[in-house]
Amino acid sequence: MPQIDADRFLRDLNELRRIGAYKTGVHRPTYSSEDMESRRWLMERIAEIGLDPSIDGIGNVYGRHKGAGPHLLAGSHIETQNYAGWLDGALGVVAGLALARAGLPVDVVAFADEEGHFEGGFLGSRSILGLLPDDEIDRSRNRTDGIPLRDALATAGLAGKPRMQLEKGRHKGFLEMHIEQGTQLEQAGLRAGVVTGIVAIWQWRITIEGMQDHAGGTTMAERRDAGLAAVRLLAMIDQEFPKVCGERSTWTCGRIAVEPGAPSIIPGRADILFQFRDIDVAVLERMERCLRACVQESNRRERTTATLLNISKSLPAPCDPAMMAALDAAAEGLAPGLWQRMPSGAGHDAQYMARAMPVAMLFTPSIGGISHHWAEDTKEEDLALCCRILGDAAARFLAE
Amino acid sequence: MPQIDADRFLRDLNELRRIGAYKTGVHRPTYSSEDMESRRWLMERIAEIGLDPSIDGIGNVYGRHKGAGPHLLAGSHIETQNYAGWLDGALGVVAGLALARAGLPVDVVAFADEEGHFEGGFLGSRSILGLLPDDEIDRSRNRTDGIPLRDALATAGLAGKPRMQLEKGRHKGFLEMHIEQGTQLEQAGLRAGVVTGIVAIWQWRITIEGMQDHAGGTTMAERRDAGLAAVRLLAMIDQEFPKVCGERSTWTCGRIAVEPGAPSIIPGRADILFQFRDIDVAVLERMERCLRACVQESNRRERTTATLLNISKSLPAPCDPAMMAALDAAAEGLAPGLWQRMPSGAGHDAQYMARAMPVAMLFTPSIGGISHHWAEDTKEEDLALCCRILGDAAARFLAE
Repeated sequence: MPQIDADRFLRDLNELRRIGAYKTGVHRPTYSSEDMESRRWLMERIAEIGLDPSIDGIGNVYGRHKGAGPHLLAGSHIETQNYAGWLDGALGVVAGLALARAGLPVDVVAFADEEGHFEGGFLGSRSILGLLPDDEIDRSRNRTDGIPLRDALATAGLAGKPRMQLEKGRHKGFLEMHIEQGTQLEQAGLRAGVVTGIVAIWQWRITIEGMQDHAGGTTMAERRDAGLAAVRLLAMIDQEFPKVCGERSTWTCGRIAVEPGAPSIIPGRADILFQFRDIDVAVLERMERCLRACVQESNRRERTTATLLNISKSLPAPCDPAMMAALDAAAEGLAPGLWQRMPSGAGHDAQYMARAMPVAMLFTPSIGGISHHWAEDTKEEDLALCCRILGDAAARFLAE
Repeated sequence: MPQIDADRFLRDLNELRRIGAYKTGVHRPTYSSEDMESRRWLMERIAEIGLDPSIDGIGNVYGRHKGAGPHLLAGSHIETQNYAGWLDGALGVVAGLALARAGLPVDVVAFADEEGHFEGGFLGSRSILGLLPDDEIDRSRNRTDGIPLRDALATAGLAGKPRMQLEKGRHKGFLEMHIEQGTQLEQAGLRAGVVTGIVAIWQWRITIEGMQDHAGGTTMAERRDAGLAAVRLLAMIDQEFPKVCGERSTWTCGRIAVEPGAPSIIPGRADILFQFRDIDVAVLERMERCLRACVQESNRRERTTATLLNISKSLPAPCDPAMMAALDAAAEGLAPGLWQRMPSGAGHDAQYMARAMPVAMLFTPSIGGISHHWAEDTKEEDLALCCRILGDAAARFLAE
């Protein structure tokens, strides 16, 4: 078993936490001065360990192992959501450092903008795979302040730098450690989660057209209330989805807006953002059929017109069975009975890496399930334990 | 039967329509230069007819009949909603002029700000009844631009003018002709509506507190989704209300907002504006009990907390039986079989006048039910017919 220096691993995490510190969390939006400071900090750590550090034209920081293979790639992202947690992303990068420090043949990577501060998102992991065309970079803007991506790259000192491409055949697999961002481990009293795959997200916009009218002058029978039709449709979806979904499917209406939104006006229009997630394409397709049937049924029952528009369909990214088996064995050795397999409901860089190599992820518990908020946290003993599990699994998988 | 000069009545309406003309409608917000021009125009018409014109410190224009009583009061408001219709309000005022011109002992009134451009609303009809305290005037602001009511009154040249009070015992009743603002007359092929009363509006805010969470990391069972709880509650209300409501009750959710409103975040909070209307307090009370039971049931079923807050409860204003009977007789005489009795779902100045004297209202059809929009319209032959019905009814009621 590799000798993971857990104290040094925690010290690194706490040192990185100071860059852009906000309350108990951090604020390091992509290409901000804090984000760039954290990338320079990472390159210094990479060099200390004896890896070859570099940063490319999209901000990816890479630490290349100088010795013989077979190699693993390990990492995550280093920027954060606005005023968010200290571990989301940083944990996977610093765990990669810890594996390399323990002598494992590991390249360490910090991908740029997994958090999607810029339109498109996952800039770094897509770029390294050749999935980020130049014209998308030309068009993309910051979602918060509208600054063009090109301008942000220039300000960060990255303009004109070449973008690195993944060296084909170099890596046996990609390992990403991450916080769970949910409460399943905590509620089950577990200390580690072996991720079975990253769910696909299928996103939809539903618009409902009715007739804006006076709430006093229009009888119930005369109305074409777009807001009420939206309410009934969403209630119907929530009744029907359990009949077709998988065991761990989720579905969410994150936005309902009715127009004009005044107390005495019957809404003439409703706008709904709806998404569902699952790891199994067959389940996703059943959910899509159910959603389409609900919209059709709404249009049959109501005097309004609902229109369903697909916004995006991502692909599920199943984790590699041999890598999962290595993580299972390592977790059972170091935390017997205190781990489980589980899907990842959130997106991660690993979902893109899965297009190029076998991937696996290890989840640490999230205290109270909080993430994307400065209060995000995980017990230090769980962080240390999971880093040892990751190191042991890496060694087991490399030895196969 | 009094000789109503329908041509002159229509000419007056079309002349008034030019002040603040916008497309086929008008834009005369309260105390704007266009609104004040229309009030001066009205005072000239009042003087021409031989009534005694005046304007008071809140902008009410009054035309006092110089002869012997018993008198009627007839009118409505003269300002409009923004970029709205030419008849809403103006119709009742100009009909009052037509009655006085025909020799009926009628005082004509145009109340200020029935449309509620300023906080509080119904400024003129409340003021004349002593229901608008000075400190409310001090506090009230324009809902669109935030300008204090005192400043708007000063700009309009009304600062320091006394506010007229209704002369007790002078009037046998108040008559208000108004567009229907709905499609009931049109759909039934009718030409006049005798209003049975003005519904009360009971307004509510429902807030639902849940837990904002990641749409991927949080299983369906773990969620405390405030948006979904709102959807289920509103669907439940819409199922339960028909069991307790009256024949002409209405209920409306004009606003649903969920926070933070992002596609991948489970809403932590939902904010609902809900109102119901009926003419019968017993029905209103049944609907309130049903609403409270639904909220209680939501709190029993859901893992969220719904809180119900009453915003306002207005009083229903039933119309006077003798005045309605006079309108029935006049309508049957002039448009046999082409009229009906019906409640007013919208608020009108008559609801305040009902606190001081018997009131009645006559509705003209609204083409397509459109109101609060510049496309609002009514056929000129319907306007003329209804003005004759109003005049005949006034004579019948005065003769009793």
